[in-house]
Amino acid sequence: MTDDQMTLQELKDRVATFVRERDWEQFHTPKNLSMSIAIEAAELMEHFQWLTVEQSQQLDETAQLEIGEELADIVIYSLSLANALKIELAETVLAKLAKNIRKYPKEQVQGKAHKYTYYQQQAEQK
Amino acid sequence: MTDDQMTLQELKDRVATFVRERDWEQFHTPKNLSMSIAIEAAELMEHFQWLTVEQSQQLDETAQLEIGEELADIVIYSLSLANALKIELAETVLAKLAKNIRKYPKEQVQGKAHKYTYYQQQAEQK
Amino acid sequence: MTDDQMTLQELKDRVATFVRERDWEQFHTPKNLSMSIAIEAAELMEHFQWLTVEQSQQLDETAQLEIGEELADIVIYSLSLANALKIELAETVLAKLAKNIRKYPKEQVQGKAHKYTYYQQQAEQK
Amino acid sequence: MTDDQMTLQELKDRVATFVRERDWEQFHTPKNLSMSIAIEAAELMEHFQWLTVEQSQQLDETAQLEIGEELADIVIYSLSLANALKIELAETVLAKLAKNIRKYPKEQVQGKAHKYTYYQQQAEQK
Repeated sequence: MTDDQMTLQELKDRVATFVRERDWEQFHTPKNLSMSIAIEAAELMEHFQWLTVEQSQQLDETAQLEIGEELADIVIYSLSLANALKIELAETVLAKLAKNIRKYPKEQVQGKAHKYTYYQQQAEQK
Repeated sequence: MTDDQMTLQELKDRVATFVRERDWEQFHTPKNLSMSIAIEAAELMEHFQWLTVEQSQQLDETAQLEIGEELADIVIYSLSLANALKIELAETVLAKLAKNIRKYPKEQVQGKAHKYTYYQQQAEQK
Repeated sequence: MTDDQMTLQELKDRVATFVRERDWEQFHTPKNLSMSIAIEAAELMEHFQWLTVEQSQQLDETAQLEIGEELADIVIYSLSLANALKIELAETVLAKLAKNIRKYPKEQVQGKAHKYTYYQQQAEQK
Repeated sequence: MTDDQMTLQELKDRVATFVRERDWEQFHTPKNLSMSIAIEAAELMEHFQWLTVEQSQQLDETAQLEIGEELADIVIYSLSLANALKIELAETVLAKLAKNIRKYPKEQVQGKAHKYTYYQQQAEQK
């Protein structure tokens, strides 16, 4: 199945089934899931720990594959948390993107990586 | 839009547009994105830092909302990494789920939270 | 050597020697070291991922030993960062403790785990 | 007090007093402290998130100060965990350094940042 066909709900359901069939809801509490996402994020980082930013853009096939697996783990735990807290993910992500669009107006932030507080300060100084 | 309607590709495209319109591809390198996911995961954890596992299951509305936003940030950066590395996410996540299903056979792990190495050791001792 | 005898400087020097003898200063940049601390912190968390808060207080000897090693890794990278940035650690930690003492007055926070912003809001409402 | 004068025990005691005076031992469980270290590590990383590795070596005074504070938080929680689990830190860190010295022989790893498993594979192929 391609990313074009796969809906968020379908993927959430697959994860929910995996967890339920193992009677793991008792472990998949929000606290534990937040730790799990952070742990998998660190395993992802481990692949880039000693690379320059440039080297991180030229990965060999093995690294690419392993990194895909770590990313998958992050997505799986994220979906499990969405299930546990009954979060509508599409709506929540679109709302956050809209908020970021307001916080980082595209004309103003072109090619710059300041935090949004920087632009607030700039605006206040005018 | 509901999770039923939203495809992974649609959400990946929205994130790609947000990044491209700000000329931020130069910052959204795999190394930086792996750090970004870990940073957002930690902000998510902060909500659960001092809670018991049980308390983490009984959140008030404000906490629920803020947690949704942190989860959204994790998803956004994860999708941006998938874009940067041209990772087909549906395929990758389904493959990882299939691998986990083999590593954690449901009859064997019912309600237990050991690591898969534990079950390997058990099998070898037979 | 006991914690009574070991100074911060002595431990910083041991770490500096280890790094220098391997010609690793080029990798031990502040950015990479911050990632390294986060990665080791996640390996530490992995030991507690599925435990209740109570279970995390009753560890067997093996777990205790492995956890000690993960904590050692965090300390080693923290000292390496202090070396790289020429941070006087005693002074910096004492200053941060003094700041925390002001932020969390002991009469007010007895047995409570709110964030300091909570006490500020309380004070403002008076 | 300088790093030359400050012993690990002295610093552990200062942290223990801070925690005890607030009746916070109940929150400073190993599970929660492992999360706390990871959260502070992420706040440290946030300073380097969008910097190149080189930029992370040329920090201005404000950044240097803020980074010192984040590092202090990591050290404080690490010492609190050592207190909670009665870990002798000097001994544990020296043992881990000795282990790393064996894992990464200095003649072999000069200026290279491979994982120790790489050197094992090299040795086995001979």
